[in-house]
Amino acid sequence: MLDAIRDRRSVREFTDETVDDQTITAVLDAGRWAPSGLNNQPWRFIVIRDVGTIDRISQCTKYSDVVRSAPLLIAIFIDTNAMYDRTKDVQAIGACIQNMLIAIHSMSLGAVWLGEILSQKEKVNEILDAPDSLELMAVLAIGHPTGERRASTRKAIRETAYKERYDSPWE
Amino acid sequence: MLDAIRDRRSVREFTDETVDDQTITAVLDAGRWAPSGLNNQPWRFIVIRDVGTIDRISQCTKYSDVVRSAPLLIAIFIDTNAMYDRTKDVQAIGACIQNMLIAIHSMSLGAVWLGEILSQKEKVNEILDAPDSLELMAVLAIGHPTGERRASTRKAIRETAYKERYDSPWE
Repeated sequence: MLDAIRDRRSVREFTDETVDDQTITAVLDAGRWAPSGLNNQPWRFIVIRDVGTIDRISQCTKYSDVVRSAPLLIAIFIDTNAMYDRTKDVQAIGACIQNMLIAIHSMSLGAVWLGEILSQKEKVNEILDAPDSLELMAVLAIGHPTGERRASTRKAIRETAYKERYDSPWE
Repeated sequence: MLDAIRDRRSVREFTDETVDDQTITAVLDAGRWAPSGLNNQPWRFIVIRDVGTIDRISQCTKYSDVVRSAPLLIAIFIDTNAMYDRTKDVQAIGACIQNMLIAIHSMSLGAVWLGEILSQKEKVNEILDAPDSLELMAVLAIGHPTGERRASTRKAIRETAYKERYDSPWE
């Protein structure tokens, strides 16, 4: 479990292989079991495999190539009608997305969390017929990894964690 | 992996047993491997086991009993100096917390994500000598579960997920 968390990396290149309904349902199931404040479950998902729709969405981001390479997108929205506290609700969305990323990784698929696309979120809503009450939070591009694996880094624990009080590093 | 995601529940009652340094480091390690926009890693952590500090923090929330019952708290902050986009940064915090919760569960510990305490976040900063640049995002109360296990529920997948376009349910 801890290894899966540490081993997960963004995957940006996918094979042509499609992702089946059952796998997608498992990913959505992982997402919905995230915790949320007052258990309000503010997340909403649109699953996209239609090539024409994927192509239109690819035009809403500078990472068009990544989006077009993916056989599957899942757009994640926050339902502003279900919100009770923006900070806590947006945290819940992050928890939900992380569950989905871990589920994807555990099924030997790969994904990348696209955030830059939020700069054209209204256009994405239009393409997907999503009402104004749904605010786009992220798009996951998902597929079977080509196998190329990038390294990633993180700060050392002692740079971000403290013991009992601020500025006494955890080590 | 998927079972661990589904089986995790909030734990609000803990035994007297303490949590050792190595376990805490593993939880922090899971947190720091969360993804963040531009890999900015905006999370900061303060680990608290001092009984006097735990007692003072318990007075910042209406869930005092839960906090006082826990042998370990981890306060999670966002470093506002490291932020680049509040929505994306707060999502990253949510992803980080979820990694920690999964790690905790996978090591047979239990935790509850406390959000209500944010109503007294300035007081928490004061107790922990945290600078104004750190904004409290959540407190995790962590320990060994007493064994009592509560049920929880989620909406059905078809209530929150759509196929290709809004309002065509995923099933």
